[in-house]
Amino acid sequence: MAERLNSADAALRVRAAKVIPGGMWGHLNAANLPDGYPQFFARARGCRLWDVDGNEVVDFMCSWGPIVLGHHHPAVEEAVRAQAAQGATMNGPGAVLVELAEQLTGMLPAADWCLFEKNGTDATTACVTIARAGTGRRKVLLARGSYHGAAPWCSPSLVGVTAEDRAHIIHYDHGDLDSVRAALAEAGDDCAAVLASAFRHDMARALELPTRDYAQGLRALCDQAGAALILDDVRAGFRLHLGGSWEAYGVRPDFSAWSKAIANGYALSAVTGAEKWRDAAARVFTTGSFWAEATSMAASLATLRELQRVDGPAVMAAMGERLRAGLSALAAQYGVGVTHSGPAQMPLMLFDGDADFRRGNAFCSAALRAGAYFHPKHNMFLSTAHGPADIDRGLEAAEAGFRAVSRM
Amino acid sequence: MAERLNSADAALRVRAAKVIPGGMWGHLNAANLPDGYPQFFARARGCRLWDVDGNEVVDFMCSWGPIVLGHHHPAVEEAVRAQAAQGATMNGPGAVLVELAEQLTGMLPAADWCLFEKNGTDATTACVTIARAGTGRRKVLLARGSYHGAAPWCSPSLVGVTAEDRAHIIHYDHGDLDSVRAALAEAGDDCAAVLASAFRHDMARALELPTRDYAQGLRALCDQAGAALILDDVRAGFRLHLGGSWEAYGVRPDFSAWSKAIANGYALSAVTGAEKWRDAAARVFTTGSFWAEATSMAASLATLRELQRVDGPAVMAAMGERLRAGLSALAAQYGVGVTHSGPAQMPLMLFDGDADFRRGNAFCSAALRAGAYFHPKHNMFLSTAHGPADIDRGLEAAEAGFRAVSRM
Repeated sequence: MAERLNSADAALRVRAAKVIPGGMWGHLNAANLPDGYPQFFARARGCRLWDVDGNEVVDFMCSWGPIVLGHHHPAVEEAVRAQAAQGATMNGPGAVLVELAEQLTGMLPAADWCLFEKNGTDATTACVTIARAGTGRRKVLLARGSYHGAAPWCSPSLVGVTAEDRAHIIHYDHGDLDSVRAALAEAGDDCAAVLASAFRHDMARALELPTRDYAQGLRALCDQAGAALILDDVRAGFRLHLGGSWEAYGVRPDFSAWSKAIANGYALSAVTGAEKWRDAAARVFTTGSFWAEATSMAASLATLRELQRVDGPAVMAAMGERLRAGLSALAAQYGVGVTHSGPAQMPLMLFDGDADFRRGNAFCSAALRAGAYFHPKHNMFLSTAHGPADIDRGLEAAEAGFRAVSRM
Repeated sequence: MAERLNSADAALRVRAAKVIPGGMWGHLNAANLPDGYPQFFARARGCRLWDVDGNEVVDFMCSWGPIVLGHHHPAVEEAVRAQAAQGATMNGPGAVLVELAEQLTGMLPAADWCLFEKNGTDATTACVTIARAGTGRRKVLLARGSYHGAAPWCSPSLVGVTAEDRAHIIHYDHGDLDSVRAALAEAGDDCAAVLASAFRHDMARALELPTRDYAQGLRALCDQAGAALILDDVRAGFRLHLGGSWEAYGVRPDFSAWSKAIANGYALSAVTGAEKWRDAAARVFTTGSFWAEATSMAASLATLRELQRVDGPAVMAAMGERLRAGLSALAAQYGVGVTHSGPAQMPLMLFDGDADFRRGNAFCSAALRAGAYFHPKHNMFLSTAHGPADIDRGLEAAEAGFRAVSRM
């Protein structure tokens, strides 16, 4: 196999090391990725991505979620172009704010109102603040190990975080209603909210969808406790179900937090909520300089309509299943044990007995050289731009990965 | 004077009331503005703004700061278009991340490294977190009444905020080094950082620039205490001085927080910091789904270069002085007492003896009808798109405002 060119990426990393602490921040730092993964990207179209050295890959990360219709989707780009030609960040919102809020409250059965922000963390934080305002209570229950953003109250790191930032956080275990009961008992009459992820998607372990009983049980426990059920749909939103990820279980949260796929890559997040929390939402002070920016809202409106038009979740599920079936067949062919988990639209493949991810990393590195960008330990993402030929091209690259693993 | 048309705005407000709590959030809620101010905007070009009813105004708010070169600046729009044609939100940053970080560290003498985020609040919060990580201390000193964002630790509202969110905040009084000394004494050996605004710009009171002695004294007190000096340049950044707002006083902060004008309306914020904090910045976990988005960085690079090319702060200062001189002349002509405060690029005009802002509101409402968008109690913003003819058109509208006040 030809050596993958990486000289432009290497040169940029040298420059970045001087002006960006650690070369890159957070989840996007390529130091956390398998060998050979590029740090810098030059171009993106549909489900194809080119790094700064011109290496092309079929992309199975979709920018870690935001790209749900494929890069540079014509309907989204046209909506953005039209809005930008009029106005973007003005002294107040454009009419598109109202249209988008109407679209969301129309498509999401649990949503009577919306607020818009820029980060997923803005949305989860606003949900907590509104729940506290509405209940007059302080405690917030989180599933141990779950990711709800990078603010001090929920960051996966404690560096620079004080004990008081977490003073009112109580943990429960995902999928375990008894642990929720115990956490509620600990909160006493001071429980403002229970945060739940759309499904368990903690890094570096198998993904777990909730059962219907669990989701409904959590709703019932919140109702008994008078606490808000906050569904963190930042990562899964608009990929699993266009009515909200727990609609399939018949569960309607008090609040949902949205971001990532909401505007096909444009910076936007949202809180949607039920009627009973409207007054609390109006009393909380939440704002930002770019939160009324109109082009991201135009992008969102176009994205959501397109997802409805093509039934995005079904399209992505079908392609995710095709990918998963192909990966399974290859794994069997090469005699390598793997476990698939998660919804097909956001799949994860772990190698059996691979606690140190040596096999997962080797698989990814080899597949990358052969033209597909997979992730060894974080859920991946499909988009509606992934067609059968793209999946098959990805599987061709995956075969190189399995071959590498079979030789270890 | 012809009645100002507002039927489209009124119709949108009715719809918004159903889907947005309180009709609009935060500082952009028109309920907090003088009578007749529109909530929704349709179009923006240069320093002109059109509401959804087609009413045109000369804009002296510049979208509350972000618009620094005027709306839809050709160099910025072209940079965004070129970057968007390649890629925006990808699996990692584009090369433009490095170029922008090099631009910032090159132009800001206090900056050895950068991090990029989306909100001003992201930037101030990251500064605090990094200071805590770097010092192993917890206390943060804020000037009483200062605005540093909308997160629970610093929000101007306590609704939904817990006591623990503020557990390590100690207040001092802007401009009063003795009060800083007292706050440092209270913090003991636990002071991580002192936050300072570029100048005192608290809502509804005269703006106050720091003295050189005060700025240098604050720097010396931080050095003695081993605490970081964080300059919140979110609002003033790139309007007062292209090297950082305290460069004029010979004071270099440990960190600066930037947003608003950094990308001429595109959603971006940044932290810049000194070498000694680089390691702490690399250890803190701070990230967001859109923080590597490339078009906002391309917009920023174009914006900063254009500000350097035209000496933006000088252009805005000259036009701000022209505005101020004209307002003073009109005030004298109509026998109305006013007080100007703040830097000319971010001016505020308060009516004497107008604690309830009746005169300020009446002035603004009448001026708006006559074609200029002023603010009665928040600092206003100039852009480099404001030319002499625009200022004079604004003054013509202001005359209607003074006339209205003189009849009260």
